[in-house]
Amino acid sequence: MDYSGRQRRLSAQLVSRQQVSRQVDALLVTHLPNVRYLTGFTGSAAVLLASAKPLFFTDGRYREQAAQQVRGAKVVIPRGSALSAAVKACQAQRITRLGVEADRMSVSQFQALRRELGKGVKIVPLVGVVEALRAVKEPGEVKLIRQAVELSSSLFPALVKALKPGQTELSAAARLEYLARHSGAEGMSFETIIAAGSRSALPHGLASPARLPRRGFVVLDYGVVNQGYCSDMTRTVHLGRATARERAVYAAVLEAQLAGINALRPGATCGQVDEAARRVLRRAELAKFFTHSTGHGVGLEIHEPPRLGAKGEAVLQAGMVVTVEPGAYLPGRFGVRIEDMVLVTATGAEVLTPVDKALMELL
Amino acid sequence: MDYSGRQRRLSAQLVSRQQVSRQVDALLVTHLPNVRYLTGFTGSAAVLLASAKPLFFTDGRYREQAAQQVRGAKVVIPRGSALSAAVKACQAQRITRLGVEADRMSVSQFQALRRELGKGVKIVPLVGVVEALRAVKEPGEVKLIRQAVELSSSLFPALVKALKPGQTELSAAARLEYLARHSGAEGMSFETIIAAGSRSALPHGLASPARLPRRGFVVLDYGVVNQGYCSDMTRTVHLGRATARERAVYAAVLEAQLAGINALRPGATCGQVDEAARRVLRRAELAKFFTHSTGHGVGLEIHEPPRLGAKGEAVLQAGMVVTVEPGAYLPGRFGVRIEDMVLVTATGAEVLTPVDKALMELL
Repeated sequence: MDYSGRQRRLSAQLVSRQQVSRQVDALLVTHLPNVRYLTGFTGSAAVLLASAKPLFFTDGRYREQAAQQVRGAKVVIPRGSALSAAVKACQAQRITRLGVEADRMSVSQFQALRRELGKGVKIVPLVGVVEALRAVKEPGEVKLIRQAVELSSSLFPALVKALKPGQTELSAAARLEYLARHSGAEGMSFETIIAAGSRSALPHGLASPARLPRRGFVVLDYGVVNQGYCSDMTRTVHLGRATARERAVYAAVLEAQLAGINALRPGATCGQVDEAARRVLRRAELAKFFTHSTGHGVGLEIHEPPRLGAKGEAVLQAGMVVTVEPGAYLPGRFGVRIEDMVLVTATGAEVLTPVDKALMELL
Repeated sequence: MDYSGRQRRLSAQLVSRQQVSRQVDALLVTHLPNVRYLTGFTGSAAVLLASAKPLFFTDGRYREQAAQQVRGAKVVIPRGSALSAAVKACQAQRITRLGVEADRMSVSQFQALRRELGKGVKIVPLVGVVEALRAVKEPGEVKLIRQAVELSSSLFPALVKALKPGQTELSAAARLEYLARHSGAEGMSFETIIAAGSRSALPHGLASPARLPRRGFVVLDYGVVNQGYCSDMTRTVHLGRATARERAVYAAVLEAQLAGINALRPGATCGQVDEAARRVLRRAELAKFFTHSTGHGVGLEIHEPPRLGAKGEAVLQAGMVVTVEPGAYLPGRFGVRIEDMVLVTATGAEVLTPVDKALMELL
């Protein structure tokens, strides 16, 4: 990855922001996925001062790892806190306007920073600057995402094959996660959701000690991490024969998902994609059971911009990778969700997840 | 768990804080483990207004789960954001001084809150209020922590038995995590560290594709989650025969660890415990290779107060559960860390981790 190139693009952004009041000399990057994006560092404690003379601060635990990994910035292991060291560097570099990641800095950190910096430096709270760069993936990133998607998809047949009435959701998750690790995943990209029977009506039904019923839907929502990049997929299968009502809901969710994918193209707004999916469920009188947004960006984080939500005004660009994942959750009865990862291309969209979406009944 | 009791103790704290300028009518709890501690809610999106009339805010995804789980507060699913709904509730409840979790609230959230609340409500940034309550565990919590420690300890023999030269660190981690899930763990409490050979000198050497060498140390640092409560343990074993130098470093780290445990008692400061361990390594001329603090509290989070660091002034109390985990990391050569979980008792300390600490050579 071209870390210096990313830092150059960031610097160009910082000095040329539309609102003059948002222009800064440097950005104090405190959100770890952003630090990783800009330097390659994968550890759990670091701050980057993205300036003309970029400095990377971490602690003694990461001395060796930082020396091996960090590109495009000088590594500093300060005696005191990383924030205090960054303050001294701002003064040494004569920075007068310092941007901070307002979504990713605590009130405590902000107060300490203001106190230590004194009046000579103006702190400018900014939101989503690095995230905006990250939203459009480079070819090397798309490659790693494809690998993550393919890895998780390759596990799906074994996951489904092992679903048996009486088995716990947790043991199915344990097996899936073991296979994922053995296939080379660094880990799961979020806590595995396996929600069967009436639990399928919980949009976030983490795998539990509940046992799979003889019949009913099972929502399977999981992903893996490959060299830092996440995948995310959901399929809903049915144990035994589905009823006519279950089939109808499944068909509506699938149609909504295809409509969402179909609306994905450069120039479309996030809200338009959400509406394309939501409209299908509204016609099927299921809109009130679709209680979340249609999708989200995926990359170094499992949830990152853009967010495909109602009224979302952000405009899609080629190179963005998003999920499309409408669902319908009938409280106390059952739920269905279908989710792919999709790459926005120059002309439309490419579905990355190669797993069939026809209703699967396990008999 | 007695959630209402916890909220009562919190309320008593809020109105009677030593500094009058820190007294508040209510606390806006935004840190999820704190929300869980006070209400029992385990989902990933929630805000609690801890006031005379406590209100719990989440979104539509968690309607059913909140109804099932939340105790001691009325559940509200607002149309807009949880923060905006909390603002309205503050106004309705005539709250004039609102505490916020300054370590756990972003600058963006703080700005939005200030804008929406207007001038009638004073926002008071507070740090660690709920965490201070959480630091002293109730008997029911100690029971869950013991179970977590016993579960992870029970996996250790199988983990060690499967360590073979040529095997990757990742596949050893995969097997461990599979066994953990099958034994009833909700998940791992942090990313498993398996660091072999020269990688053992990385204090945070996450399991990697590196293969285990024919001889050398292997640092094994892992934990599980049991009903929300974490465990954390480290053992360092040796593949093949250890050299005299390796034995000497191991012996010094073990002596430091025992000295740390020995210093743990109600009334001791965190700094005294850290110094007790560090002094042993200083005498062995290894202090410069011990680059982190001696330990940390463990509970609903894997790292929580108190922190057993140099100069730590916090005073230990019976009911606290901490790790004691000195280490020595010789860059490019090898590292050793030994870690137990320890309960501070009325008279001293009880080691919870039942795994032997004598040097184990795998021949």
